[in-house]
Amino acid sequence: MPQYHAPIKDMQFILHDWLNLSAHYQKLGLEDFDKDLVNEILLQGAKFAEEIIAPLNREGDEQGAKLIDGNVTTPDGFAEAHKDYVANGWNAMLGNADFGGQDLPNTVAVPVHEMLNSANLSWRLTGMLSESAILAITKHASTALQNTYLSKLVSGEWTGTMCLTEPHAGTDLSLLGTKAIPNEDGSFSITGSKIFISSGDHDWTDNIIHLVLARLPDAPVGVKGISLFLTPKFLPLSDGGIGQRNAVTVGSIEKKMGIKASPTCVMNFDGAQGFLVGEANNGLACMFTMMNDARFQVGLQGLGIVEASYQGSLEYARDRLQSRAPQGIQEPSKKADPIIHQPDVLKMLLTQKAIAEGCRALALLYAQQMDVERFGKDQEKHKAKSVISFLTPIVKGFMTDMGSEMSNLGIQVYGGHGYIREWGMEQLVRDARIAQLYEGTNGIQALDLISRKLARDKGTMLEDTFELFNSKIEQMTNADMQTQASELLAEWLATATELKQQNAVDLAGAAYDFMNYSAYCLLGVIWLSMADTAEHSDIESIKLGKANTCAFYIKRLLPRKDGFKTNLFNGADDLMVVSDAEFDYQ
Amino acid sequence: MPQYHAPIKDMQFILHDWLNLSAHYQKLGLEDFDKDLVNEILLQGAKFAEEIIAPLNREGDEQGAKLIDGNVTTPDGFAEAHKDYVANGWNAMLGNADFGGQDLPNTVAVPVHEMLNSANLSWRLTGMLSESAILAITKHASTALQNTYLSKLVSGEWTGTMCLTEPHAGTDLSLLGTKAIPNEDGSFSITGSKIFISSGDHDWTDNIIHLVLARLPDAPVGVKGISLFLTPKFLPLSDGGIGQRNAVTVGSIEKKMGIKASPTCVMNFDGAQGFLVGEANNGLACMFTMMNDARFQVGLQGLGIVEASYQGSLEYARDRLQSRAPQGIQEPSKKADPIIHQPDVLKMLLTQKAIAEGCRALALLYAQQMDVERFGKDQEKHKAKSVISFLTPIVKGFMTDMGSEMSNLGIQVYGGHGYIREWGMEQLVRDARIAQLYEGTNGIQALDLISRKLARDKGTMLEDTFELFNSKIEQMTNADMQTQASELLAEWLATATELKQQNAVDLAGAAYDFMNYSAYCLLGVIWLSMADTAEHSDIESIKLGKANTCAFYIKRLLPRKDGFKTNLFNGADDLMVVSDAEFDYQ
Repeated sequence: MPQYHAPIKDMQFILHDWLNLSAHYQKLGLEDFDKDLVNEILLQGAKFAEEIIAPLNREGDEQGAKLIDGNVTTPDGFAEAHKDYVANGWNAMLGNADFGGQDLPNTVAVPVHEMLNSANLSWRLTGMLSESAILAITKHASTALQNTYLSKLVSGEWTGTMCLTEPHAGTDLSLLGTKAIPNEDGSFSITGSKIFISSGDHDWTDNIIHLVLARLPDAPVGVKGISLFLTPKFLPLSDGGIGQRNAVTVGSIEKKMGIKASPTCVMNFDGAQGFLVGEANNGLACMFTMMNDARFQVGLQGLGIVEASYQGSLEYARDRLQSRAPQGIQEPSKKADPIIHQPDVLKMLLTQKAIAEGCRALALLYAQQMDVERFGKDQEKHKAKSVISFLTPIVKGFMTDMGSEMSNLGIQVYGGHGYIREWGMEQLVRDARIAQLYEGTNGIQALDLISRKLARDKGTMLEDTFELFNSKIEQMTNADMQTQASELLAEWLATATELKQQNAVDLAGAAYDFMNYSAYCLLGVIWLSMADTAEHSDIESIKLGKANTCAFYIKRLLPRKDGFKTNLFNGADDLMVVSDAEFDYQ
Repeated sequence: MPQYHAPIKDMQFILHDWLNLSAHYQKLGLEDFDKDLVNEILLQGAKFAEEIIAPLNREGDEQGAKLIDGNVTTPDGFAEAHKDYVANGWNAMLGNADFGGQDLPNTVAVPVHEMLNSANLSWRLTGMLSESAILAITKHASTALQNTYLSKLVSGEWTGTMCLTEPHAGTDLSLLGTKAIPNEDGSFSITGSKIFISSGDHDWTDNIIHLVLARLPDAPVGVKGISLFLTPKFLPLSDGGIGQRNAVTVGSIEKKMGIKASPTCVMNFDGAQGFLVGEANNGLACMFTMMNDARFQVGLQGLGIVEASYQGSLEYARDRLQSRAPQGIQEPSKKADPIIHQPDVLKMLLTQKAIAEGCRALALLYAQQMDVERFGKDQEKHKAKSVISFLTPIVKGFMTDMGSEMSNLGIQVYGGHGYIREWGMEQLVRDARIAQLYEGTNGIQALDLISRKLARDKGTMLEDTFELFNSKIEQMTNADMQTQASELLAEWLATATELKQQNAVDLAGAAYDFMNYSAYCLLGVIWLSMADTAEHSDIESIKLGKANTCAFYIKRLLPRKDGFKTNLFNGADDLMVVSDAEFDYQ
């Protein structure tokens, strides 16, 4: 596995030059944060990711998580790394200060999270989902529950999970059957079985706090009858210590394609004591608090994999001597030229680079909106929320699809060696693949985008998103690029607006195409805007690198949008006309 | 893992209706073959693939191949299945009758090979490469070598390997350093180390015959100094029995992403006795005999995976109840509708179906040309060879890319369950991935197509290929579809002809796009031609199924060609302009 190096220079360019963080923080009244502090956190985060987490990744895949006598053990070093992470305050980055958190802006935490994803997806997953659980408790739980659980979750002394899926209820949560029976003391007895519970058990912490979707006895059918329950592995004592073991057990752990070091558990609740979070029958709203955060974070996993894979490809392409370059001999003293001089290899590397940097900019632009939603005021806060809602399925769906596509290019650059486990490139593909599936498959993301966020939206999510991107265009100084970006964004808005009129079936047929079409358009705007900013950079490799990579993106990758656009107004008749018998030909 | 069912009905449609095999066999003087015999072989092949080979696939992946005390063992049942295969004459299908082969047309053997690939890629690989070795010996080896080795290889009593790659010589065989020193008895002492040798050792047969590329002491540098040597694991006795162990050992076996049941060996030759095959320093030509056959066969692996994955997706999409279909409730008695009624799922299934049937037709059209090359006369034989040369990189590159893309769709249809090993869908992705890498990466296929087969060809490969497809169009009866196919093919020819003029660097930059552009165009012609033929079918599901799937292909998949076409005339300047420093941003 090539040594991971955090892409600090690019992060700094995006944060300071492109997003102008200092002005952003001032506007939000976050005077404690400046360029130096952000850079220091990036450097320390990079050190942790590179030195502590990345070295565990390859061996973690070989060892995998294990279930022994009902308890999960994780690979060597994983638990220690978590203790180190907690001790250095990393787990508390985004936590509320009232519960020991550091209340850092998302624009600071997100780059660090990207690094952790590049370094070791399996390891990062536990903390990531724990953060989502913390959000739900912070937003929806009673003060009593918050006082009991939040501090330890924020610090990372305990971790949290999301227990949603059941064997017959995945995408369709209305089918879930886990039951919650009220106890006399106001708590509930939770009974049922959940599957695909990441870090449902592990050997990192003394306690694990499960957030479980279940039905009350008198609940309405469907998703309107779902409630959320906080169900700890051990019931805490009043002094904060660990009390009685709750009736929650691990049934088994899954044998998976990848993220093998992450224990994916079947969790059995047999009358486990749980505590209602939020209102009864309002579990779906609580769930979406977790889910929307997790969707962004999963998108960030895609980015992490793209970056790791790019770095691996680049290193190998520079080292591997094979054949002569078609433009002429590059290294006469050697028997062959490094394959980086082959146009087809350059194309793969530039594809990875353009996607890595483009997705990073998208993720950090999103993070900036998260800052505004958290720390901004009234209308700007509302607008930020609206943009976040619209972009979430794009970030999750597109960036994780890119995780798979780019890591597969990574294998391809390595040739046969890419298929061998010790090189680590195939692990990236296997690890990346889950991100297209969990927290809502990418098909579900696409449906969410086109139906809920585009067509059924009574508000202005589309317009708010347009405005955000348009404001980036307005800041541009290169007139040619500005015009190009402006036309591209206008085309996207017009297409999306026209699409809104279609019926639900046609929309469902066009959903995936719209997600991709939107992503390639918006990334085009981002690239032009970044290249414009880079013209003023005094770092030569940034200045030239952004210009050339932008040109590559516009010429080679942006045309993909047209293929997706072609399919947007096709209707779904050609899909629906196919009768069941036509599928068979045995 | 869903039960595999051989796609007999589709194979019969393509072979009998679309390719009109009876007339084809009569024209070639192969009067022994008729529809009934072909159908019987398909049925028996299906039985073997479904009942003997497929059930070993999932467990084979879990057990993997093992190296114990220098000997490779394969998973339970693999060796017995080979004995069964040999006993029933399957291994001898394509072998020369002089050495006990059945001399079957390729149009009969290829469908059976597709079935084996769908059923169990790892198991099939040994036999597949053995067939390539048989071809090289048949075409290039001395009568004495043929008499000693061919009968046992043809029957399958022994297997053969291809030993080409060395750690620093993969794509670039000019770098290989294995040495062959002449012995006094006319044999050679082979010394060197080879990597990535599929089935370099196994527990299936008493002997293994390695075909090894090496250099003679006085050999010219580069690929013109490579010779091919037959190097048996055990030196045969004059009575055909097994003699002394040769100095060939297994250094290790690779830990891989997939095809885990197939032993990928490091082979060490320490003065092993070898016998020159063909002329000295003419090893590259012998190697290409093996390689071209193997490239087609690897393409067929891609097809096998597409089909297996399609079947798995279809079964799950029919079974899995989740949410209601947007067009209205489909199964009121159930709590949710099968996901096959979701437009996005239908789109995935139809994509898999269109690619499976389209690639199958391409493979069988290619097989028909192989028949003509083997059994035809003079000019038609020459033309068939020319078409095969042109199509080989497309079949290998495109069909294996499709193996990965379609098996990834297979995972996606399963949602989270697709990531779990017991379902078998992720194994298809892992197994499929190697096919894009071995026997020349797909980047190398694309370069071979655009440089050797298109631009540098002094003959008429492009025109011969055009003519073959045009002859299929001329047979069409539906005027609308005929015009559409004709225009598509003309566009392709014009584009390819224009492209020929470019310089080597621009061609290398456009290579992958041209391979894809060509494949989507030619598959479009194939689909229109198949749909035309199907109008006359009396099987309703074929008639409707081909019409609707063709419409889907033309509407949803063919537009991909335009994205690739856009990039064909871009030149490579945007790639070559990027300086090395621009790639870094740590």
